[in-house]
Amino acid sequence: MIRIGILGYGNLGKGVENAVAHNADTQLVAIFTRRNPDSITPITKGVNVYKAEDIANYKNDIDVLILCGGSATDLPKQTPEVAKYFNVIDSFDTHANIPQHFQDVDNAAKQNNTLALISCGWDPGMFSLNRVYAESVLPGGATYTFWGKGVSQGHSDAIRRIKGVLDARQYTVPVESALEAVRSGKNPQLTTRQKHTRECFVVVEEGADKASIEKQIKEMPNYFADYDTTVNFISMEELKEKHNGIPHGGFVIRSGQTGEHDEYNNVIEYSLKLDSNPAFTSSVLVAYARAVYRMSKEGKTGCITVLDVAPSYLSPLSGEELRAKML
Amino acid sequence: MIRIGILGYGNLGKGVENAVAHNADTQLVAIFTRRNPDSITPITKGVNVYKAEDIANYKNDIDVLILCGGSATDLPKQTPEVAKYFNVIDSFDTHANIPQHFQDVDNAAKQNNTLALISCGWDPGMFSLNRVYAESVLPGGATYTFWGKGVSQGHSDAIRRIKGVLDARQYTVPVESALEAVRSGKNPQLTTRQKHTRECFVVVEEGADKASIEKQIKEMPNYFADYDTTVNFISMEELKEKHNGIPHGGFVIRSGQTGEHDEYNNVIEYSLKLDSNPAFTSSVLVAYARAVYRMSKEGKTGCITVLDVAPSYLSPLSGEELRAKML
Repeated sequence: MIRIGILGYGNLGKGVENAVAHNADTQLVAIFTRRNPDSITPITKGVNVYKAEDIANYKNDIDVLILCGGSATDLPKQTPEVAKYFNVIDSFDTHANIPQHFQDVDNAAKQNNTLALISCGWDPGMFSLNRVYAESVLPGGATYTFWGKGVSQGHSDAIRRIKGVLDARQYTVPVESALEAVRSGKNPQLTTRQKHTRECFVVVEEGADKASIEKQIKEMPNYFADYDTTVNFISMEELKEKHNGIPHGGFVIRSGQTGEHDEYNNVIEYSLKLDSNPAFTSSVLVAYARAVYRMSKEGKTGCITVLDVAPSYLSPLSGEELRAKML
Repeated sequence: MIRIGILGYGNLGKGVENAVAHNADTQLVAIFTRRNPDSITPITKGVNVYKAEDIANYKNDIDVLILCGGSATDLPKQTPEVAKYFNVIDSFDTHANIPQHFQDVDNAAKQNNTLALISCGWDPGMFSLNRVYAESVLPGGATYTFWGKGVSQGHSDAIRRIKGVLDARQYTVPVESALEAVRSGKNPQLTTRQKHTRECFVVVEEGADKASIEKQIKEMPNYFADYDTTVNFISMEELKEKHNGIPHGGFVIRSGQTGEHDEYNNVIEYSLKLDSNPAFTSSVLVAYARAVYRMSKEGKTGCITVLDVAPSYLSPLSGEELRAKML
């Protein structure tokens, strides 16, 4: 059994707990939290909840620690810190800061002979794999990533910060005609506006100025100004009834040419349709925990990403079984 | 530069030659053939063509030898034989015999400190990767592979062997309603007949008994009897004009559940749409030649498959570049 620890018990931490229960060779042994441990009742029976500050005391009890904090402030500090004691995995997803985060974690892990895998999940994660595979096997061509339909937590939060707004959900929606143009192999040049639209469902205070709120949303720089945005004002009841989930997904599509004169077109498409973004991310994290455990046993140390892991490490099946059943 | 050799100069061999030209870090240095070398004029300038029987003489001139023969009779003998002298890759695709072929090649490669990668291409190959990734990250669920729309060489050949048939093309076509049922997350049980149909375009001799030929096709065991098959009789001109290509492709779809009570459904879909089956297979082979070259330099020996190769080995980009641009 691979002994798993969780640091941080929000949506992602609970997702990891459920994903561990879906894998026969993994076992959850401890949850670490910055809250009062007594305030948490794990779903899994017999799992201890400890204070995050005491985590180093449990270094011999855990094979792989899965970090379930946020990329903005938690992981840049936490991952290098706990990599001193544990093999770790995180889902750091601020793409622009990955090189710096990698360096910080690599230093800590190498000095302490641990193995750390960062930026795991679906983007970065499964989508990254597919970008690299597709560009490698079709060197001439163009790659496109589309997201959605799905809830963007960051955009929903941005709407909630507007005065008069009580709650909001923002869906990122890929433009079907853009998807079709890409799939046709035309390698189109697409602007931000041509690739995605943004649909907002907003609950406001009684008497709020809806026209002003809609204008503030649509003109918000970075978040909405570059997109065609639709704003729907709904009741709190409707929001809770129809927009309570955290679905997401998307598409990685590469179109590229082969043949002596590039006469053959080829389209590689990978897509995800996920009822729950954090539940799927958690499921990916646990599969990679298996890989980290095995690679660590082989003596691998330092920081790696999903790009450095051979697929066979993710599966509970043996090499023989994989070749006989899956190849 | 990675020095590539090709053994066998048919559709696949020519495809590999073109794929090598699409990759800046690979160079074709030799073609080996069982035909008279003088009868072959390579597309690439300056490439020598040698007799297959003399291949061992060139063991120091080639970093990776790509075998481009057939799975029925060529590769089971050739791959273990040439793995004595070279790092090799083949596209052995008789799924049921992969374990035996692996063992034969592994023995030869281990005894001679070479590295061999077998069963590379798209199925087995890219589809295998996607089956393993999808089942690993979604352990609860069902996986489906659909092929087509594309030309099946084996089925076309089977039709050609019928008396009175001059030429034929057989297309394997996935059933759209089956694809939709799978994508919906219903995990349907599908029979062979429900997954694919077979479309045949047949040219017959003047005065041939079309009704009898159609019956022979539709009732042919293993090839057609278990499928809904359509037979179209056309002229040789139409066959050459409209059915001259070798397109193929297909879908790997996994639908699986996450959440405490399996309440979330998830669908992972990978698809290929290829204008030329051998040209794409060749392109995959050359990307994996890069991986074999690098892993061999690291001291890896024996037989491996695509499941044993980390994605980063396939890309000409460095680890730093991959993390900055692709993750």
